[in-house]
Amino acid sequence: MFSEKELLLVPGPTPIPPFVERAMSRPVINHRGPAYEQLFATLQEKLKKVFQVTGEVFVFPAAGTGALEAMTVNFLSPGDAVLVISIGFFGDRWGEIAERFGVQVTWLKFPWGEAATPEAIREFLKKAKSPYKAVLITMNETSTGVVNPLQEIAPIVKEAGSLLLVDAISGLVAMPLPMDEWKIDAVAAASQKALMTPPGIALVAVREAAWKFVEESRMPRYYWDLRLARSFQSHHQNPYTPPVSLLFGLDAALTAILEEGLDQVFDRHRRLRDLLRNGARHLGLEPLVSDDRFASCSLTALKVPEGVSAAQLIQTLRHQYRIEVAGGQEHLRGKIIRISHMGWVHESDIHLVLAALGQILTKGSSQN
Amino acid sequence: MFSEKELLLVPGPTPIPPFVERAMSRPVINHRGPAYEQLFATLQEKLKKVFQVTGEVFVFPAAGTGALEAMTVNFLSPGDAVLVISIGFFGDRWGEIAERFGVQVTWLKFPWGEAATPEAIREFLKKAKSPYKAVLITMNETSTGVVNPLQEIAPIVKEAGSLLLVDAISGLVAMPLPMDEWKIDAVAAASQKALMTPPGIALVAVREAAWKFVEESRMPRYYWDLRLARSFQSHHQNPYTPPVSLLFGLDAALTAILEEGLDQVFDRHRRLRDLLRNGARHLGLEPLVSDDRFASCSLTALKVPEGVSAAQLIQTLRHQYRIEVAGGQEHLRGKIIRISHMGWVHESDIHLVLAALGQILTKGSSQN
Repeated sequence: MFSEKELLLVPGPTPIPPFVERAMSRPVINHRGPAYEQLFATLQEKLKKVFQVTGEVFVFPAAGTGALEAMTVNFLSPGDAVLVISIGFFGDRWGEIAERFGVQVTWLKFPWGEAATPEAIREFLKKAKSPYKAVLITMNETSTGVVNPLQEIAPIVKEAGSLLLVDAISGLVAMPLPMDEWKIDAVAAASQKALMTPPGIALVAVREAAWKFVEESRMPRYYWDLRLARSFQSHHQNPYTPPVSLLFGLDAALTAILEEGLDQVFDRHRRLRDLLRNGARHLGLEPLVSDDRFASCSLTALKVPEGVSAAQLIQTLRHQYRIEVAGGQEHLRGKIIRISHMGWVHESDIHLVLAALGQILTKGSSQN
Repeated sequence: MFSEKELLLVPGPTPIPPFVERAMSRPVINHRGPAYEQLFATLQEKLKKVFQVTGEVFVFPAAGTGALEAMTVNFLSPGDAVLVISIGFFGDRWGEIAERFGVQVTWLKFPWGEAATPEAIREFLKKAKSPYKAVLITMNETSTGVVNPLQEIAPIVKEAGSLLLVDAISGLVAMPLPMDEWKIDAVAAASQKALMTPPGIALVAVREAAWKFVEESRMPRYYWDLRLARSFQSHHQNPYTPPVSLLFGLDAALTAILEEGLDQVFDRHRRLRDLLRNGARHLGLEPLVSDDRFASCSLTALKVPEGVSAAQLIQTLRHQYRIEVAGGQEHLRGKIIRISHMGWVHESDIHLVLAALGQILTKGSSQN
């Protein structure tokens, strides 16, 4: 009876607001007809505002990983030298994608739980014999809850003459990312994070000045081909069938986000983060990211105290409190839990998860 | 007020039954939790029944075109010689995808509106100096409403020692395609056709005996990598976030299809086709495909009579009758209209579109 009563606090998919669900229940329409073209045209305008970009935003039926692959095959060519700055699981994944496609990857890795430092990046780029074609970096690392200081990193990369490609899948809308202002060449995002829409839509935004690199890429591509997408987008259509019902949802979500105002949405995410971090510390739960400056406003990783089983804690939250949180990945498995505050999450949700954690931990065990 | 009262008879997306819509309104769940694993395990079993295959069926957040690209990059390697049998727009598209990925394509094209003939294929394969690595063929050509005689073609291809890869995007579930029995190595499908689910899910089914070719392929891939998908599928998960809400819908649609029974579903599609073809002929509208044996049970293309504007006919159906049909593609633009009878379409829908066509055409013009 309570299977659908669940507080979904994993870092994607995130909870869907009822107004987004209602929008998706609209009957599916012909993607080659005028009603769709009107939808796609307004969606395009809203997306540009959210990405803070004058260039185009491309919409793929795909998971966020598809957006990473799309940036890789549209901006790079086999043999290109790129710098992959990784601070965790998803940075590693993107670098692996690039390697699979024959790109020559140089890794600059930072310890999981820490942010990339502008100084280290500047030093690294300085000692490169020739400029990297591109620098690939994660805005917000979902595996650790760390946000990179992109505002400081971006000018360093642009000075070095490289393209700056950013994975903002779990960061967009939760924290500021003014693409044009920071001169970020391309940004990947996905529907199921702070955009409050079910999974199935991948987004790639391209800064106008960066378009010429798409034309130059010699990577084989069809599904992800931005040139093909652009030729259809000029008349508000897509090369192949778009995920119409999900787009109805995304349109409703974007309307709500823009009505609230981007700055207010950023503030809201920050407030939730602070509430959770302070509340957790009060319970004796230490955030993985100690420095507030690099603590993500999208999600928070908490260290599981000595003697407590992370798996058991997740199970107890699931079964006794109907709260879904995520565990750690790779070497952080068993060491942290990850709690999302992206999208349609309210202070009351954070209060509930804190109350639940407090009750479980003060009982002196997580087995009950 | 009537914007949502619409009879959607384009060949995808097709109408969504209310029970599928209701299933999709279930709140989104954690794709790394036990509820999802249970869903995905049962979905897998249902998909195998629908594809009539003992091998695995892979689920991608993607459009149908993604399934074509996935088959291309998982079964072929750059430089491989393949035969692309094309009878229309979508056959051409698949061949283009293969060419983009460096596959050496030999084309065997048949006139739009006709089926591929087993004799011609046998002759063509006979005169090849060495066997083609694979033969790529469309089951049901959506641009013309022609179904290929795959039951006869399959043994010819297998005798020639080639892999048989089939695009069944607009054919699956509307017409028989017993994969194991016909020894078809891989089949592509998509949610938004006879599977009665919104667009956003691409499917690739692989015959067990064909798996070894996936391991051998040297094509660069990540998003479409079936090896990666398989490693997660073994514990009922996916490498990246699946389109959870669409999968709820697909699961409900598959349940309905299997409860009705595949043979009954095929019969139903055939009845609708016959009703539409006979009714159209009665109105003096000639089907593009004259031979009943090759007339698709998914959709029917009707020739627009001399002196009638196809664009105007489509507009009148849209605005006066709230019926959405499709026009012709490429050189058939302006010459045909295409009416889908895939999925959640009832006899009453066909009666309505016939009545509308009758009224418009007997008024002697399509301008009113």
